[in-house]
Amino acid sequence: MSQIVVEKKVLNENQKLAEELRAKFREHKILVVNIISSPGSGKTTLLERTLERLDKGRRVRLLTGDLQTENDAKRLAQWGFPVKQIITGGTCHLDAKMITKHLEDWPLDTFDMLIIENVGNLVCPTSYDLGEHFKIVMLSVTEGEDKPLKYPSIFVRSELMLLSKVDLLPYLSFDAELAKKNARSVHPGMEIIETSSKGNGLDTWIAWLDAKIKAVKSGELVSA
Amino acid sequence: MSQIVVEKKVLNENQKLAEELRAKFREHKILVVNIISSPGSGKTTLLERTLERLDKGRRVRLLTGDLQTENDAKRLAQWGFPVKQIITGGTCHLDAKMITKHLEDWPLDTFDMLIIENVGNLVCPTSYDLGEHFKIVMLSVTEGEDKPLKYPSIFVRSELMLLSKVDLLPYLSFDAELAKKNARSVHPGMEIIETSSKGNGLDTWIAWLDAKIKAVKSGELVSA
Repeated sequence: MSQIVVEKKVLNENQKLAEELRAKFREHKILVVNIISSPGSGKTTLLERTLERLDKGRRVRLLTGDLQTENDAKRLAQWGFPVKQIITGGTCHLDAKMITKHLEDWPLDTFDMLIIENVGNLVCPTSYDLGEHFKIVMLSVTEGEDKPLKYPSIFVRSELMLLSKVDLLPYLSFDAELAKKNARSVHPGMEIIETSSKGNGLDTWIAWLDAKIKAVKSGELVSA
Repeated sequence: MSQIVVEKKVLNENQKLAEELRAKFREHKILVVNIISSPGSGKTTLLERTLERLDKGRRVRLLTGDLQTENDAKRLAQWGFPVKQIITGGTCHLDAKMITKHLEDWPLDTFDMLIIENVGNLVCPTSYDLGEHFKIVMLSVTEGEDKPLKYPSIFVRSELMLLSKVDLLPYLSFDAELAKKNARSVHPGMEIIETSSKGNGLDTWIAWLDAKIKAVKSGELVSA
C-alpha cells in the first residue's frame, strides 16, 4: 500500500470516530472548539486569561495536546476547571481517537463547552477532524503577516482567527491590517479578534464563545 | 500495511537518498545546514540579514521550503545569491527527494555552502535527514521558555540553537536563561547563539558558519 493510500485510510478512520464524537456532542449540546497555531503563538496563555475571567460555576472542560510534558495542563488547571493533558509522543497533531479516549471518564452531561488546545503546528492538525464545531486559528503578531498565504489550509478551515500578542505591536514592524487582509484573501469574510495576554480583546473573545454556547443550547447551531 | 510500517518504509527510502546526497556533499566539500523552527520564528529574516553581510563573492546557495508561495525565495534572492523555492504542497517538511530534485541543475563544484531553510514546523522536519552536516534549531524569545521540553527531539538532534528576536526581550517576560537551561537539559552542552534582525549575534553566527566551512574544506569535518 502506498503512503497516500495509508494516509487516506488513516483519515477515513479518523473521520468515522470524529462523526461519532460529533453525534455525542450534539446529543449533549456541548460546544466544542479546536484551537490551532504555531508553537508559542500564545494558545495556553490566552486560555489562562480566559479561564481566569470565567465564573467558576461555568461548565467548561479542556483537553490540551503536546508531544511531551504536562506543562500546559498544569498551567490551565490553576483556574479551577477540569483539564486533561494529551501527550502524543511524537505525533504532530491530535486525532479523534485521542479525544474519545480522554473523554471516557468525563460524563458528557456535566459540561457545556469543551476547549481543545491542539499540538503547536500549523500544518498537521488541519486535516484531523475532532468532532468540533469550529477550528480556531491563532496567529501572533511576532510571526509575520504572510502566514495565511504560506499555510492557507488552516486559515480556510477556521471559523475565527485570533490575532494574538497585539500588545507587542508598538515594538514590531508587523502590519496587522496586512495580516488580516491576507487572512481574508484566503478566507473571505473570516472573523478576526485581536487579543493579548494584557487583556486586549478578551471580552470580545469570551462573548464570541458565549454566543456559540447559547446557539448550541438553543438548537440554532447544530454541527453536521 | 499499517501506518507505522509505511512510515518506516518512507523514512528508510528517505535515508537512502540522504546518504547519496551526503556522499555528494562530501565529495565536493560543501557545508550543508538545515534550519528548522516554528513558523514565524525568523528563519528568513535571519538569513536575509546574514546574506546582506556576506561578501558577494562567497559561494553560497539556498533552498527554502514552504507549503505555498515563493515569498521566501523572493526575499532571499534580493541579496545576490542563488536561491530556489521548494513548494511542498501540503507536506509539513522537506525530504531528501525534494533536495535531490532541486539540486539537479546546480553544479556541485560551484559552491561551498548550501543553506536549507525547512518548512516552519518543530515536529515533522526532525525525522527527515537531508544529507546535511547539521540541523540548526531556531527558537524565538516570543515563543516561551518551555519549547525545548515540549519538542525535545529537534533540540536533541540540532548542533546549534539560535535564540532569535532577542531585541524584544525588554518587552517580554521571557526568561532567556531558563530557555537555554531547558535546551541544555535535553541536549547537554548544546551550542547557543542569541540573534536578532537588529544585528545581535550575527557576527558570531557568521563566524560559526565560516569555521564549519573551513573545517569541511580542510577535511577536519567529515559527515558520515
